Amino acid sequence: MSHDELPMTVPAEGLPARVRIHEVGARDGLQNEKTAVPTEVKAEFIRRLADAGLTTIEATSFVHPKWVPQLADAEELFPMVSGLGGVRLPVLVPNRRGLDRALALGAREVAVFASATETFARANLNRTLDESLSVFEPVVRQAKEAGAHVRGYVSMCFGDPWEGAVPLDQVVRVCRALHDMGCDELSLGDTIGVATPGHVRALLTGLNAAGVPTDVIGVHFHDTYGQALANTHAALLHGVSTVDASAGGLGGCPYAKSATGNLATEDLVWMLRGLGIDTGVDLGRLVATSTWMAGHLGRPSPSRTVRALSHEDTEEH
Amino acid sequence: MSHDELPMTVPAEGLPARVRIHEVGARDGLQNEKTAVPTEVKAEFIRRLADAGLTTIEATSFVHPKWVPQLADAEELFPMVSGLGGVRLPVLVPNRRGLDRALALGAREVAVFASATETFARANLNRTLDESLSVFEPVVRQAKEAGAHVRGYVSMCFGDPWEGAVPLDQVVRVCRALHDMGCDELSLGDTIGVATPGHVRALLTGLNAAGVPTDVIGVHFHDTYGQALANTHAALLHGVSTVDASAGGLGGCPYAKSATGNLATEDLVWMLRGLGIDTGVDLGRLVATSTWMAGHLGRPSPSRTVRALSHEDTEEH
Repeated sequence: MSHDELPMTVPAEGLPARVRIHEVGARDGLQNEKTAVPTEVKAEFIRRLADAGLTTIEATSFVHPKWVPQLADAEELFPMVSGLGGVRLPVLVPNRRGLDRALALGAREVAVFASATETFARANLNRTLDESLSVFEPVVRQAKEAGAHVRGYVSMCFGDPWEGAVPLDQVVRVCRALHDMGCDELSLGDTIGVATPGHVRALLTGLNAAGVPTDVIGVHFHDTYGQALANTHAALLHGVSTVDASAGGLGGCPYAKSATGNLATEDLVWMLRGLGIDTGVDLGRLVATSTWMAGHLGRPSPSRTVRALSHEDTEEH
Repeated sequence: MSHDELPMTVPAEGLPARVRIHEVGARDGLQNEKTAVPTEVKAEFIRRLADAGLTTIEATSFVHPKWVPQLADAEELFPMVSGLGGVRLPVLVPNRRGLDRALALGAREVAVFASATETFARANLNRTLDESLSVFEPVVRQAKEAGAHVRGYVSMCFGDPWEGAVPLDQVVRVCRALHDMGCDELSLGDTIGVATPGHVRALLTGLNAAGVPTDVIGVHFHDTYGQALANTHAALLHGVSTVDASAGGLGGCPYAKSATGNLATEDLVWMLRGLGIDTGVDLGRLVATSTWMAGHLGRPSPSRTVRALSHEDTEEH
């Protein structure tokens, strides 16, 4: 098959001219891995992602090693990649201690991780929803005072494994609180992958009505039920231009074992290429990177595009 | 996880009120299987699909057994299921001989299988594009005279493994020819799974401009690059209300070995359920059917929804 001319580029109306991919494979992807990944391999992964043209690469998390042992090497890893030119390297910070550690290493972008539901706030943060927001407030303020860009993750926006349905106005309230406290950017997380396109549009409309503009909103879909790219398409049609994705579809949710990973960056790049929306990503290099990482993790990538294109390399047609 | 209230139902504007799923698993899904599936298992598969609420189930193909040995039992199979009440059971007919065999068994719906490209017409039908159309013309006429409903498949609408890009006007010409010769319905096939949403919208717009109305158009996407559901969403936004899908994502393309299967019916049903578009399908029964069939084929379903929901049954949260 001729890769160079497929997919055909046929732009569609009403879509953003540019999309920024927020690559989360190195953090959200690796944080749930059972396989211990050496720090040097993580650094090489990030360097290869940058080399493939990704410009925002979430690098690691300054969470307490007890909670996420997979990312306990944040202090070693970050300096190994922080010199990469032209690449934004946000890091997750759960609290002021984590923020202090990240800022001390020169991090310029940080992210806090909030929940749209009480149950997930208790399970993941051991706090009520409002307590968790009050913990983030000084973290966001201090980060802004230090001149850092702040992203606010909102998990469980479209459903919760314990609560089931999550009311839209509750999600809007949490997003609005994070926006009001100064987050430069929000990421709407469908942590268990249950969202569908109408739900996505409704939440975006609700956020706009509450004073949260589309240009601060990113979307973060998981592909548990195969909906991630359709939901992304719905978000693009609403004007969203920041999309989270994970190289090779790495990642999952520790509270939903059957979850497949995040939206695969390769599947997203295929769609955006077809839509004529430039991302600067070299798909061949990205597929090679995900295939290389899959080798370290000992299992094939769940990304359809990675599977198709890595098969192509070894097949005759 | 509470299945009953997820996905949340949040309708979106501009979508069709009803969608008819054209289930192709028993024909398009099984025709490429290396595993020999006993006729009784095929019949049971079709009965189970009907029991899960599917109302259009493509049953088999009256092609010469030499070409598709997997479906060589069409003559035995069709009478085993033709009594199913309230279910449409289209069958594929490659030529007049196949049509005669199907009509003799009482088939009320038939489908011809055309190509949008010269190369695929030669590979699959051993004819030029125009020759293949001239072969279908008497088949369609005879089927209409016999009172049968006729579907025209058009394969390679969005790309071809040998030719690469396929010009839109060439696809429109083939579709228009099939429409003009009397096909009641067309199915736009993305046989190698390369389409993206803008391309889908552009082809539908081109067809409308050429006098082919949306209500005779169905879409048939493969998930090779993970695009099938996003493309389906784009087609629904254009007003398309007939969507081909395959239970469990069964199927592939013999000319593109790395291809995963068709759009999985379960992933489609999840999205439509979230959008509040009723299909009459019982998702739990459908997942059970696909899991049962996967057992016969000896490998897990590639459908994300099947994997997630069949895991859920055996996990504690």
